[in-house]
Amino acid sequence: MPMKTYREELWFETPARRAFLNITPKVERALAQSGIREGLCLVNAMHITASVFINDDESGLHADYERWLEGLAPFSAGSDPARGGYLHNRTGEDNADAHLKRQVMGREVVVAVTAGKLDFGPWEQIFYGEFDGGRRKRVLIKIIGE
Amino acid sequence: MPMKTYREELWFETPARRAFLNITPKVERALAQSGIREGLCLVNAMHITASVFINDDESGLHADYERWLEGLAPFSAGSDPARGGYLHNRTGEDNADAHLKRQVMGREVVVAVTAGKLDFGPWEQIFYGEFDGGRRKRVLIKIIGE
Amino acid sequence: MPMKTYREELWFETPARRAFLNITPKVERALAQSGIREGLCLVNAMHITASVFINDDESGLHADYERWLEGLAPFSAGSDPARGGYLHNRTGEDNADAHLKRQVMGREVVVAVTAGKLDFGPWEQIFYGEFDGGRRKRVLIKIIGE
Repeated sequence: MPMKTYREELWFETPARRAFLNITPKVERALAQSGIREGLCLVNAMHITASVFINDDESGLHADYERWLEGLAPFSAGSDPARGGYLHNRTGEDNADAHLKRQVMGREVVVAVTAGKLDFGPWEQIFYGEFDGGRRKRVLIKIIGE
Repeated sequence: MPMKTYREELWFETPARRAFLNITPKVERALAQSGIREGLCLVNAMHITASVFINDDESGLHADYERWLEGLAPFSAGSDPARGGYLHNRTGEDNADAHLKRQVMGREVVVAVTAGKLDFGPWEQIFYGEFDGGRRKRVLIKIIGE
Repeated sequence: MPMKTYREELWFETPARRAFLNITPKVERALAQSGIREGLCLVNAMHITASVFINDDESGLHADYERWLEGLAPFSAGSDPARGGYLHNRTGEDNADAHLKRQVMGREVVVAVTAGKLDFGPWEQIFYGEFDGGRRKRVLIKIIGE
């Protein structure tokens, strides 16, 4: 079979600084649009203070993630490491913690495409994780296959 | 060359709550079965309290991972965050910590396939990381290429 | 269109134990060399004490990563966990912390290829993260597409 590729961007602007959005239906729509039946589907944040990851669509768990990530990489607008700040914030940003949180949660997922569907286990759902919201940001979907 | 795809599931049931299993030979067998010589091989956990990752097959390191992850995301069956619990456990589960540990270790790996082999550095081995065992769970292998 | 694949290794020897190197221009050169216009580009560390990740090319942020990772997985040459050491170091190594740091930052990235370019958001850059330098180590680039 000849190879096909498909590309689509999703746009987000979350009013809150941090949010987890279930984007599975949007990725499923893109896959249907692509006509690809067998292959791989890459979904990645195009911004470096956001994540795309796969886990459970359960609000308690999302609150646990939020609290846990805040413990691992606490927000600070400061730029003095001796006082809990981040050197990155010397650039005028206040989002250094978001660059750290995103590394824990990851930039991208690669999902198998089988018989025209996302080939998922029973609870897998794709999330956009926003760690520095309030501005327009993008997710890229790229599908290759046949 | 025309594109080919191959799909296989691996099943696991680890008696212990947590375990690291070297699945490299199983992935190599799947690759041989596929007949694919050049391409990409996705290996992902199909469950959201388990990981697939690449690192060293050394038992001391695995014990270090176990202790380190327990420090980053301690097990608790409780559901009160003020007492070390997790809101997710209000659903009746006791595995919230496993959802966190899996984010640190990752859901999936993508491995290059070159000349019919997994294209690995000297010590790379693929592991299934179980963080909530005692039930049947799956790993998906999807290979695309020619 | 018929499928094409391309493979290239990058070699590094960082004098310091830890370093972040921007390898985006090298990956762009490999992509141009491949002639591939649409597809996926895998870039992965071939060694298990190093990472490939995507984030910002900003020296303050890199210093923040360095300090943060040292807090999450502190260096120790010791092998007694009760004194901050790692069991892995009983093998004669002193790099157990590097195996942990690499899991946080990740082994690999998969980047979409569109119209012959790495399909990136505004600030995305690819880095090689070295956590146990002073020896020759490799990164693999594998591109598939058409």
